[in-house]
Amino acid sequence: MKIDHTITTSATNGDNGTICRTIEVAVIDRRDLTSPSMVASPLVGDELNLIPPLNFAMVDNGIFRSGFPDSANFSFLQTLGLRSIICLCPEPYSEATTEFLKDGGIRLYQFGIESYKEPFVNMPEDTIREALKVVLDVKNHPVLIHCKRGKHRTGCLVGCLRKLQKWCLSSIFDEYQRFAAAKARVSDQRFMELFDVSTCLRKNLDQSVKKAHPFGDFLIRRAVVEDEKADPIQRMEDGSYAIRNAVNIMK
Amino acid sequence: MKIDHTITTSATNGDNGTICRTIEVAVIDRRDLTSPSMVASPLVGDELNLIPPLNFAMVDNGIFRSGFPDSANFSFLQTLGLRSIICLCPEPYSEATTEFLKDGGIRLYQFGIESYKEPFVNMPEDTIREALKVVLDVKNHPVLIHCKRGKHRTGCLVGCLRKLQKWCLSSIFDEYQRFAAAKARVSDQRFMELFDVSTCLRKNLDQSVKKAHPFGDFLIRRAVVEDEKADPIQRMEDGSYAIRNAVNIMK
Repeated sequence: MKIDHTITTSATNGDNGTICRTIEVAVIDRRDLTSPSMVASPLVGDELNLIPPLNFAMVDNGIFRSGFPDSANFSFLQTLGLRSIICLCPEPYSEATTEFLKDGGIRLYQFGIESYKEPFVNMPEDTIREALKVVLDVKNHPVLIHCKRGKHRTGCLVGCLRKLQKWCLSSIFDEYQRFAAAKARVSDQRFMELFDVSTCLRKNLDQSVKKAHPFGDFLIRRAVVEDEKADPIQRMEDGSYAIRNAVNIMK
Repeated sequence: MKIDHTITTSATNGDNGTICRTIEVAVIDRRDLTSPSMVASPLVGDELNLIPPLNFAMVDNGIFRSGFPDSANFSFLQTLGLRSIICLCPEPYSEATTEFLKDGGIRLYQFGIESYKEPFVNMPEDTIREALKVVLDVKNHPVLIHCKRGKHRTGCLVGCLRKLQKWCLSSIFDEYQRFAAAKARVSDQRFMELFDVSTCLRKNLDQSVKKAHPFGDFLIRRAVVEDEKADPIQRMEDGSYAIRNAVNIMK
């Protein structure tokens, strides 16, 4: 399979200047898993050789989280069939990782949030809000969210997503603490508590969330369940399923 | 939507007698989310009122894990659209929970593994193996695996699933410890280390894993990637996708 790399760098301007850098690559057929560039190295016998990135976990259908990925994780990451990565760190990727993204046709959204130590708190709300828009757009799925250790920046973004899913705060904090462990920060939890989901949703009204996985997508399901009037899941002529009223999640 | 409840209790006999009790209910159309019995209570405004069970997390597409669910979790669980639950505890469900399963057409697989404290280790390999078969069968998805706290019994079952997915042991243990935290047990980790996945897979050769989610199912993807000769994903006439060689996961 030949991939025609088209790399562009764009910037979204928020109140504080550049919020997100993206690297776009040519679209490839994600089902063509037999292509050498998409196939993990052949495995021998029962060898346990897949190494997920630090703090890796599945957040929802098509949404994963982790710490900073490196070349040791490439074979594992290939099994996810990622369409995009949201990097919450300002640090650039290594040449090998950049090449990995290009080969896999994976689009990078980089939101450079500086790491910080309490009490100098600086989780930028606008940036998290922009990143959340990328997470919510199923056209970017499967997507991996990561920062350096998969604890604080990633934890806050996932926590804001959970608010959107109407999880109670104690469960949101419990999930955050599971990853942050001894490094859990009250300031991060306060950030999540104060994060205004309704504004975020209204600002996203024009976003297109039209297709979803037929089963198990509880992010999208939630939107459906919330709208009692919705004729929720429509089987399309091509056999896929469309969530007719999925944009309700944006209200 | 009328649900015709057909409750049966069956038993699978292993070397140690009864391994699994199941409660079957009539099949319902899982896409009919507008049915009152499947719709969560209407949510008011931005209220955060969904309470996942203790230690809740997504393991893979269509596979969830948690501690013991109770009535406070029903609204949340409804959003998952569960088809089945694997309970790893011997304790019976409350009347309310049993009723919740009936109303949702959720099949219960109960593998009664007694809780234990080190050094009296008794994680029954045969039972975990039988439970793993249920997890692997996509006809049971979406499925929730739970024990009492979602730490040890659930952690071991998920760890064995990760071995099957060829995760390296350190990542398997890392995930186990994220949930078990201060209660992590070396004996559980030793159990996972010794668990023979190849036997389990061979024993499952006759299992039918024929359909999978079109995207993001990295459990199934793994099977495809492993077989270099496979023509992996075939688009069916009805628009669904079939993993032609998915039974390779059983080899």
